Amino acid sequence: MKIHELIRELREPSDSKIVLLVADGLGGLPIESGGKTELESARTPNLDACAREGVCGLSTPVLPGITPGSGPGHLGLFGYDPLEYRIGRGILEAMGIHFSVGPRDVAARGNFCTVDDAGLITDRRAGRPTTERCVAMCRKLQQIRIPGVEIFVEPVREHRFVVVFRGDELGDAVNDTDPQQTGHKPLEAQGEGKPAENTARFVNLFVSEAARVLRGDAPTNMVTLRGFARYPKIETLQEIYGLRPVALAVYPMYKGLARLVGMDIADAGATLGDQIETLRRLWNQYDFFFLHYKYTDSTGEDGNFAAKVEMIEHLDAELPKIRALDPDVLIVTGDHSTPSKLRSHSWHPVPVLLWAPTCRPDPVIEFGESYCLRGGLGQFPAMYLMPLAMAHAGRLGKYGA
Amino acid sequence: MKIHELIRELREPSDSKIVLLVADGLGGLPIESGGKTELESARTPNLDACAREGVCGLSTPVLPGITPGSGPGHLGLFGYDPLEYRIGRGILEAMGIHFSVGPRDVAARGNFCTVDDAGLITDRRAGRPTTERCVAMCRKLQQIRIPGVEIFVEPVREHRFVVVFRGDELGDAVNDTDPQQTGHKPLEAQGEGKPAENTARFVNLFVSEAARVLRGDAPTNMVTLRGFARYPKIETLQEIYGLRPVALAVYPMYKGLARLVGMDIADAGATLGDQIETLRRLWNQYDFFFLHYKYTDSTGEDGNFAAKVEMIEHLDAELPKIRALDPDVLIVTGDHSTPSKLRSHSWHPVPVLLWAPTCRPDPVIEFGESYCLRGGLGQFPAMYLMPLAMAHAGRLGKYGA
Repeated sequence: MKIHELIRELREPSDSKIVLLVADGLGGLPIESGGKTELESARTPNLDACAREGVCGLSTPVLPGITPGSGPGHLGLFGYDPLEYRIGRGILEAMGIHFSVGPRDVAARGNFCTVDDAGLITDRRAGRPTTERCVAMCRKLQQIRIPGVEIFVEPVREHRFVVVFRGDELGDAVNDTDPQQTGHKPLEAQGEGKPAENTARFVNLFVSEAARVLRGDAPTNMVTLRGFARYPKIETLQEIYGLRPVALAVYPMYKGLARLVGMDIADAGATLGDQIETLRRLWNQYDFFFLHYKYTDSTGEDGNFAAKVEMIEHLDAELPKIRALDPDVLIVTGDHSTPSKLRSHSWHPVPVLLWAPTCRPDPVIEFGESYCLRGGLGQFPAMYLMPLAMAHAGRLGKYGA
Repeated sequence: MKIHELIRELREPSDSKIVLLVADGLGGLPIESGGKTELESARTPNLDACAREGVCGLSTPVLPGITPGSGPGHLGLFGYDPLEYRIGRGILEAMGIHFSVGPRDVAARGNFCTVDDAGLITDRRAGRPTTERCVAMCRKLQQIRIPGVEIFVEPVREHRFVVVFRGDELGDAVNDTDPQQTGHKPLEAQGEGKPAENTARFVNLFVSEAARVLRGDAPTNMVTLRGFARYPKIETLQEIYGLRPVALAVYPMYKGLARLVGMDIADAGATLGDQIETLRRLWNQYDFFFLHYKYTDSTGEDGNFAAKVEMIEHLDAELPKIRALDPDVLIVTGDHSTPSKLRSHSWHPVPVLLWAPTCRPDPVIEFGESYCLRGGLGQFPAMYLMPLAMAHAGRLGKYGA
């Protein structure tokens, strides 16, 4: 990315510290038209104080109208163009169960399905088996050995699992084997180009072995695989920004995303309180701290407006402990919106608060979507948050004389 | 640039006149959080009247978080993407002393330094000689003759000078000869590719001759050279916009930047009053007038809030003389922010005022950063100011049927 080259050229050494606090799915919607969002309904005296001193705005994670998943949402916040850097479904699934994917891996999402005697699929999700059964079936698949490749099979939940092929010269341009409808056989894997042909050959061998070992286990008597993806080669935050970054996250997928961009992964405990205690403990060892707070998203996905408000208020109550560490730049934002009204991620712009002593005043006196609309950061692509953080942290020199 | 092709296609002849008044480093910050900026503190009845009638906004010179030098700042205002068009340090230094660089030139910044008997550098700035001594030493260097190339040496200040190599097939992909630390010899120049190899050969011959002629002149007994740069090939404002542009600037660097984009350079005197008098005199000969006002930047760099306020008020007081000429479009803005609180250029967006009879009303009733945040131009890349000026000047036709 052009801006990454520019940052490398302009960056300057500094002892300043940047905290990026991501409240997952922070942006919301009112239940009733004209009402208040979750963030606006929450009592947030500490966030409001930061908003008054700092500068606010609304970020667009990908493009207007585009709803991001967690991968693109976080890549944007970490300063990457989420349209240029894509993380395949297989890799994200592997990260989601904390499987440590590496450069020789191709990962795919697997589904148990049901086939009849003729091999035609009768249920693409095998009647949604219990997770216990998923684990037991995966144990059978783990016995499969194919010469020339290492294969890892890990259960996810219900009919879902992850399979990772590890070897040399493995490409990921391989089609999904799920025919997307019943009454058809699983598709044969085919590779585009030599490395992907290698992968496809191993995939087809694995699938026929899977059919053999699962033969007597209807309804979980067959598998389909999709989202073949290699571990993406991404320049790290160290390489681009010269930062020493660490992630304080509870959930595996966010740790995985952080590891992908070069962050160290701290053992941050299970609660926001634990995370902030870890932040305090590691304060002198790092200069970029990514704190991930999951519950604003999960309550939004549950459609629980009141619970999301409560989670935001909990976050606000913990904020003074972070400010007490005296960061040079403190950012509070989300990776996308998750309005409880929609029970899902959405495309709506995301509230952003950037606090630093070098902020120009704006009219924002409360942290909320309506105020952010009038904020000094305006509406901007999320990937520019990192350059702004670097500037306010005194870590960027002048471009050109 | 794509937009330049579009403008060429759409431009229409007109007698309309555009005035671009650049108050260098105009944007600022309050001293105390929540206070007023320099521009907001200044009493500016004339600018405020223009703001009420016109349209305002905030421009981003390069990208969010990126602090521009004067070169990229002005290129943006002149309608060029400052990331696509880069001006090398040597060219800017040459412009800064009003050396008329041309297409066969490679310019570099030179430093006098001190070497010991073994040729090792003991002081990279030769003990910061007086400018008088710099001039005397440059006179010695001016006697150097190298067959096949013309060489110009001009003093800048203290240990600094400019050297220009003029000839055919000279490239600028040449390393700096300054080793960046004492105890080392100056580095040999090496070129990347044939044309730069030509330059490097001349550079090495020049440096060894310099060592010879300065031998008895310790502490100014050696030179290092850096920032080798060719005169960039830039489409002119005439070519892109069909304008007849003239620059009314006092300081050499801004004249140089204007010449780079094809402007005629007027002898504009020493004060803003002189510049406006020149504007009046040349009113019928040109249709695009670039007025550069330096003192908003220099007072900002001095950290003198009150003086910057005063310079803004002085500008405001002179404004009626410009309006009296009845321009079709009048723009008042800066090339970047220079908050006196930071004593330097900064990345903060820059206030923009565009006055024309075709402006759509916006809520701005005073020219200042907070009001501009609510202005009709929004926040936008500085390079779009020229197309906006062209449109308001009635100089752009419709795109497509």
